[in-house]
Amino acid sequence: MRVLRGVALGVGWLVLALVAAVVVVLGLRWAQVKALPAVPELEHEAEKAAYLASVEPVDPSVAPNVVVIFFDDLGYGDLSSYGSQLVDTPRIDRLAAEGVRMTSFYSASPVCTPSRAALLTGRYPVRSGTDTHVFFPDEMLIGTLRRMAGYANELPKDEITVAEALGAAGYATGMIGKWHLGALPGHWPNDFGFDSYFGVHWSNDMMPLHVYRNAEVEIEDTTVIDEAIGGFRDEDVAFERTGGVDQTQLTRLYTEEAIRFVEQHREEPFFLYLAHTFPHVPHFADPAHAGESEAGIYGDVVADLDRSTGAIVDTIDRLGLGDRTLIIVTSDNGPDYDGSPGNLRGRKGDTYEGGQRVPFIARWAGAIPAGQTTDAMAMNIDLFPTLLSLAGIAPPTDRVVDGRDLASVFQAGAASPHPFLFYFPTVGREPDAVRDDRFKYLGATGQTGRSKPTLTRFDGDAENHNLIRRFPREGQRLADALGAMRVQVEENPRGWR
Amino acid sequence: MRVLRGVALGVGWLVLALVAAVVVVLGLRWAQVKALPAVPELEHEAEKAAYLASVEPVDPSVAPNVVVIFFDDLGYGDLSSYGSQLVDTPRIDRLAAEGVRMTSFYSASPVCTPSRAALLTGRYPVRSGTDTHVFFPDEMLIGTLRRMAGYANELPKDEITVAEALGAAGYATGMIGKWHLGALPGHWPNDFGFDSYFGVHWSNDMMPLHVYRNAEVEIEDTTVIDEAIGGFRDEDVAFERTGGVDQTQLTRLYTEEAIRFVEQHREEPFFLYLAHTFPHVPHFADPAHAGESEAGIYGDVVADLDRSTGAIVDTIDRLGLGDRTLIIVTSDNGPDYDGSPGNLRGRKGDTYEGGQRVPFIARWAGAIPAGQTTDAMAMNIDLFPTLLSLAGIAPPTDRVVDGRDLASVFQAGAASPHPFLFYFPTVGREPDAVRDDRFKYLGATGQTGRSKPTLTRFDGDAENHNLIRRFPREGQRLADALGAMRVQVEENPRGWR
Repeated sequence: MRVLRGVALGVGWLVLALVAAVVVVLGLRWAQVKALPAVPELEHEAEKAAYLASVEPVDPSVAPNVVVIFFDDLGYGDLSSYGSQLVDTPRIDRLAAEGVRMTSFYSASPVCTPSRAALLTGRYPVRSGTDTHVFFPDEMLIGTLRRMAGYANELPKDEITVAEALGAAGYATGMIGKWHLGALPGHWPNDFGFDSYFGVHWSNDMMPLHVYRNAEVEIEDTTVIDEAIGGFRDEDVAFERTGGVDQTQLTRLYTEEAIRFVEQHREEPFFLYLAHTFPHVPHFADPAHAGESEAGIYGDVVADLDRSTGAIVDTIDRLGLGDRTLIIVTSDNGPDYDGSPGNLRGRKGDTYEGGQRVPFIARWAGAIPAGQTTDAMAMNIDLFPTLLSLAGIAPPTDRVVDGRDLASVFQAGAASPHPFLFYFPTVGREPDAVRDDRFKYLGATGQTGRSKPTLTRFDGDAENHNLIRRFPREGQRLADALGAMRVQVEENPRGWR
Repeated sequence: MRVLRGVALGVGWLVLALVAAVVVVLGLRWAQVKALPAVPELEHEAEKAAYLASVEPVDPSVAPNVVVIFFDDLGYGDLSSYGSQLVDTPRIDRLAAEGVRMTSFYSASPVCTPSRAALLTGRYPVRSGTDTHVFFPDEMLIGTLRRMAGYANELPKDEITVAEALGAAGYATGMIGKWHLGALPGHWPNDFGFDSYFGVHWSNDMMPLHVYRNAEVEIEDTTVIDEAIGGFRDEDVAFERTGGVDQTQLTRLYTEEAIRFVEQHREEPFFLYLAHTFPHVPHFADPAHAGESEAGIYGDVVADLDRSTGAIVDTIDRLGLGDRTLIIVTSDNGPDYDGSPGNLRGRKGDTYEGGQRVPFIARWAGAIPAGQTTDAMAMNIDLFPTLLSLAGIAPPTDRVVDGRDLASVFQAGAASPHPFLFYFPTVGREPDAVRDDRFKYLGATGQTGRSKPTLTRFDGDAENHNLIRRFPREGQRLADALGAMRVQVEENPRGWR
């Protein structure tokens, strides 16, 4: 009995000591996080400033205006021009008929934040440290937990965005819609090269969803956070709880802003980045047309986006800017629970095709031949070098730019400039898949005990049959490419030169 | 300090007491499980005996022989007659051309054991208590844990199998292949109406994988269990570890047995249930043809199954039994990590279509018109009443038989006899989805926080767009049907009358 009492006492002290240690460590970490938010180290701020200072003024007779219309969670199969039988998108389809439609275009990540970072910087997500899922508001517990775990919650200030480069060349730059690249003051769109900003800081299932104009709240969200969290499964409930912000009107508000921006800057080169809130959940359609789509509420929301796109294109054409404006339509990743990946395997969050292959349409009247379809592989990291190239701006040389110039793909039907494209998982510094023109190699993902290194071919089926023994040479070549990229990002994640 | 010491002592005693309590409870439960395996209560053994005694002898001039060829984890898209571009199945395709091919046929569960229980009994998995995933060998820890948790690990002896009913009518009954409905002595195929049995007790990733002939081990698996568990990700490793049993030869052994069975019983009515081991993982192809398929190792394994099917059909035709034999080919659930669900959403384990919709082909020369395709919905629970009906046997009346007679669907192109079909999840007594001719209603599954009650239509897309607001009446009608079935199975899970 005395021995047992001694054991009990020892166990008791151990438990108390462990609890105390955990409390102290977490408390210290919390204090540190509050004092100094965990932004990745800034290593190349001076180089960035020097680069931007070196950018030459644009020649407006050659360089086009650029409008990038970026949907949120729109699947590869969710436009009628990409095979949807339920969703109807006549205006976007017409844009495709007037330009180029890409069938092997990818977002750089299967989730929001890293995809957006990649689009704006031309670099794989790992370069900007946005390789750990999406950013969360500090107002939500998970935001604080992310900081405590040391994850980035802002795009590093030494990254160079396409808005900064074009702005340095004299473009008028505007952003409308969802940012999702950091919400601490000093890390907003206006701090990354956008002259003007109208939109929300994050996804529409994150609270509070204030609508900002530049640094000011224009429409305040009065939601009580504690009530809203977890309440977003049902749009009807969510709607009542999104106090102040009527999400059914967000697409309309963004569209009116976009039209205003184009009209305002009609006489100068402009770059407009319109990052829509929808079709991310929760879904809110404009009551003016809600209930009309054969695809239900999701289809209604996409129909709103289609009308929005049409209205912006009409404005550009009405102002006679059609042959001086490159209009791009794409999505940040594959479909979430709702929405269609077409016949591809996987969805948002997956490095299967359905997670990252997205629609991509580009129209530039006179410069891009109408009615083209290309399966040349490309990714949203390519926008940065492509837009810089069209504006005659040399890319920065102090860092790896992973994207490639697509101008000749659009304008002359050229083959892909990429020998390989890499797929970065939702969470993780290293890519877990790679593709070339014909094959895709997916390392064992650990998502399931059944997963093994897998080789699939694009002309066969939807990543369902492992051909690694049938094509050992091709498998090895892609495994080597993946291995080399893994080494590269481990040794120099941010890709400094 | 003294107070703290007191607290530590209290906490210590508490921890020790909790540990002791857990040890005692688990020990008692373990002892109970070892003394009395947790088989569901037998409530209708007497009624079963009376029913089987009442079955009249079959009229061999009317009733056909029956051969059911049942694949393991073959996906909806894994036959060339079902659209595969990589897998080539000429013999099965020919069978489809000579009979009927069903495009809306389902397994009764997205996993092995419950699907097999349903096929043999004509009842949804919940009726036989096989509603908690698959059975595991007692040799594996998870098998013991299942028993400790009170889950069934044997098909209850008061269930009536199609083999018992046909056997009572005078059919010669044989089973070849994977049983997976219980491994305790007294619960083997011979105990459920099969005169002869040659095969394995469970899946080919479960150990030990002895090959039995009736109650005797014919080929002993000498695998060391501890080494094998978790080692099945890599077929090459697994192969070495499957001591004694050469899995590359299983399909050949089964086929030779099947041919022998048909030849042996050519003069009497016979029922053969051939439940193949493949294409379940790990994949082993016959070296005689390995490497030939465009679909890699999976395709090689399916090509072995196709040749096997062809050899059995050839035997039947050579013996002049083609117009007296109904041959059925189907699968127990959708594809696992490898294999194709076609363009359907989901895979094995899901109540999405890809988890349960499977190929189904039936040929009976002269009785089933050749070259038919039907989208009439049906399920493997329909085999029991269909085969009994063809043999002129009245079904039992003491219990719910969920299946319906498909004879007029096969023979006269009739519509589905089901107003609704229910989808039972991998684990769970209650169905979580229901379909009718046009729509499917899926209750919130909890698989993802995004999931909500969803209505989709079969002529639209692959369960990607929720139409519940667009078709509220249809949604309500299916929700009501699902709700009524949930009440029914809660009140009377085994469906006694």
